Amino acid sequence: QGTRDHPPAQAALRERLLGAVVSCFKRHGAAAIDTPVLELRETLMGKYGEDTKLIYELQDQGGELLALRYDLTVPFARYLAMNKVNNMKRYHVAKVYRRDNPATTRGRYREFYQCDFDIAGEFDPMIPDAECLKIVHEILSDLQLGDFVIKVNDRRILNGVFAVCGVPESKFVTACSTVDKLDKVPWDEVRSEMVGEKGLSPEAADRIGEYVQLHGGLDLIERLLQDPKLSQNKLAKEGLGDMKLLFEYLTLFGITGKISFDLSLARGLDYYTGVIFEAVLLQQENEHVEELLGVGSVAGGGRYDGLVGMFDPKGRKVPCVGVSIGIERIFSILEQRLKASGEKLRTTETQVLVATPQKHLLAARLKLISELWDAGIKAEMLYKKDPKLLKQLQYCEDTGIPLAAIVGEQELADRVVKLRDVSTREEV
Amino acid sequence: QGTRDHPPAQAALRERLLGAVVSCFKRHGAAAIDTPVLELRETLMGKYGEDTKLIYELQDQGGELLALRYDLTVPFARYLAMNKVNNMKRYHVAKVYRRDNPATTRGRYREFYQCDFDIAGEFDPMIPDAECLKIVHEILSDLQLGDFVIKVNDRRILNGVFAVCGVPESKFVTACSTVDKLDKVPWDEVRSEMVGEKGLSPEAADRIGEYVQLHGGLDLIERLLQDPKLSQNKLAKEGLGDMKLLFEYLTLFGITGKISFDLSLARGLDYYTGVIFEAVLLQQENEHVEELLGVGSVAGGGRYDGLVGMFDPKGRKVPCVGVSIGIERIFSILEQRLKASGEKLRTTETQVLVATPQKHLLAARLKLISELWDAGIKAEMLYKKDPKLLKQLQYCEDTGIPLAAIVGEQELADRVVKLRDVSTREEV
Repeated sequence: QGTRDHPPAQAALRERLLGAVVSCFKRHGAAAIDTPVLELRETLMGKYGEDTKLIYELQDQGGELLALRYDLTVPFARYLAMNKVNNMKRYHVAKVYRRDNPATTRGRYREFYQCDFDIAGEFDPMIPDAECLKIVHEILSDLQLGDFVIKVNDRRILNGVFAVCGVPESKFVTACSTVDKLDKVPWDEVRSEMVGEKGLSPEAADRIGEYVQLHGGLDLIERLLQDPKLSQNKLAKEGLGDMKLLFEYLTLFGITGKISFDLSLARGLDYYTGVIFEAVLLQQENEHVEELLGVGSVAGGGRYDGLVGMFDPKGRKVPCVGVSIGIERIFSILEQRLKASGEKLRTTETQVLVATPQKHLLAARLKLISELWDAGIKAEMLYKKDPKLLKQLQYCEDTGIPLAAIVGEQELADRVVKLRDVSTREEV
Repeated sequence: QGTRDHPPAQAALRERLLGAVVSCFKRHGAAAIDTPVLELRETLMGKYGEDTKLIYELQDQGGELLALRYDLTVPFARYLAMNKVNNMKRYHVAKVYRRDNPATTRGRYREFYQCDFDIAGEFDPMIPDAECLKIVHEILSDLQLGDFVIKVNDRRILNGVFAVCGVPESKFVTACSTVDKLDKVPWDEVRSEMVGEKGLSPEAADRIGEYVQLHGGLDLIERLLQDPKLSQNKLAKEGLGDMKLLFEYLTLFGITGKISFDLSLARGLDYYTGVIFEAVLLQQENEHVEELLGVGSVAGGGRYDGLVGMFDPKGRKVPCVGVSIGIERIFSILEQRLKASGEKLRTTETQVLVATPQKHLLAARLKLISELWDAGIKAEMLYKKDPKLLKQLQYCEDTGIPLAAIVGEQELADRVVKLRDVSTREEV
């Protein structure tokens, strides 16, 4: 349940999509790493907050207690700590596992690909963070997914807001996860969860509401830097200062048009410590695809400066920032589009079919195809001793093979091969 | 235990290796499929004989009982049956899981890649089988792994041998797994296991010994076709007839020089029904690498005509033949060779580093690198506001970036960029 086979047409589309993402990661100078699907159970515990219950655990068959990785970020942090790496720009494309309620029509599965790009190391502020946003912008533009917006916030700003609104520090995390719902439900509902379930005072909730419903650009950052309460909070001030710097760099990249500083963005995971961001596709009018799939997040990430230290025996910290591309959702959209367009994706790359027009010519076909393979040419033949020429040409049309190399009795006598263009029927 | 992280240098070598294998599979017209790492436990049970105990099972967390796939063949058969596919040429490159005793120095892990190519469908005999052997030949030649031999046998011939030597049919499978050890231990030991543990009569064991120590080519096939006992056995006769046909096709492919018809080859798995084969690298004199790793199987496969039927509710059969490339062993060999050669593999593909020679030029770098990325050029910069030029050039040398694009005050004034060849130090 919640997993799927990819038949050739899907596998080919996925290869194309992953190829586009990986080529962007390589364009930004990232190296690949690979880590096992299996991690020690203890490595994953205590990293995902409430979602820890969604981790797949292996049966105790003697030996270590194992679990399937839940994301690629925690294994990356474990890798950095284990190998004492202080400094790395890496990408990782691999499957992760979550015992979630699958919603397969919306592209949500229990086994799914993640495509992560992360920069680890002590650097000048916001330069790597800005690059992560540039990457999201490049990938979503390249894939022509339609209009999108990248929401940006900072955990330090959020925590500053909570502090100045009178939320006790012990409730920051839970307040954060309630704010995170603002992209799906209206403020009224979020407010009543805060006051009811989460036990904040109505006054605190109202004050929070005034902040988290704000979104904008550089102007909003400047305004909040002047805010009488926020400007007194050390964390918020730091966060806003860095946000200003980030916008400066994004302006140089020419991408602020798609960026929204949005105080309602909170992100679910515990480990973020600074900038956070999330890209959403915008609903397009008259587009059936988006209606079917709903709009939603197609990329997200942020800064997590404390995670590596959790795996280091001496607590040595390695600051990190990274982005994860929500490839499954994008895949679902591209798949629906392809279906709607009626375009048929080739599932093989075969260039030529080796064919014979008469019987008793299997040997000639085997010899010729062997020569083609050895010359690096992608070639197929039917696995019949004496197939009909029509069947052979039909196979070319069905699978999109552009050429047929035909050896008949005459060609053998003349020591030539007849090359036929399948679509134009021209022969040479 | 028995799993490993792949740091960038290994990941890059692996990408190159898998690329070579996949390009061979594509050259032969295969389409890709993907299946989940998780399979229903019941799908895997009863398919691997004694090795069933090596299957990783997931904890029962409610819902289905799951296990990690043990190979890619059983999931392929399940896929064909579930989707009622009668006919398919597919490749699949993915990780599989075995709770085996790891021998990591020899390239044996609990999590490892398999690279499988299979042809499913009802065809004229031995044509797809011959193609599988051609593929093994191409891949091992392409990778320049040194001299190798591909051993070929047929389960029907082996079973025929057992029958004419007086082994009861109920003991064919167990006799088969004992014969399989002949590549590692001498005949004496195999014989005493047959007589001792497996309970065959000494006479039967001796008769088996006369056959299974034979190996050769077409001449041996002809001799056995005339063998007074074997020629009377229906199964053996069928197998020998097909073996003769196979050699005919392999002669047309020009690869019989590396093929050995070897009656000791048995292969461990239960599901083979016809041709079986295994490629081994031959020990090379004075080669340290092979000594370290030992010689052994680097590819194997065979025909399994009954497996798909086990997953079909009506038992509908789809004959299959396939090959699996032992990528981990090959990887270990290539890794050792690379180490011995001292060659350093680049882990990134960055073409140019954007650098500045003076302070306060971060904005210029950000603007230029953004233009390069948008033009599809692989570019990096250091994440420092004011890095020293020497540090920037040093980074190029360390990571193999061939060019530096330098913007200084003069270049900005002249509206140019200085391009420096890192190795020759030429500038334009």
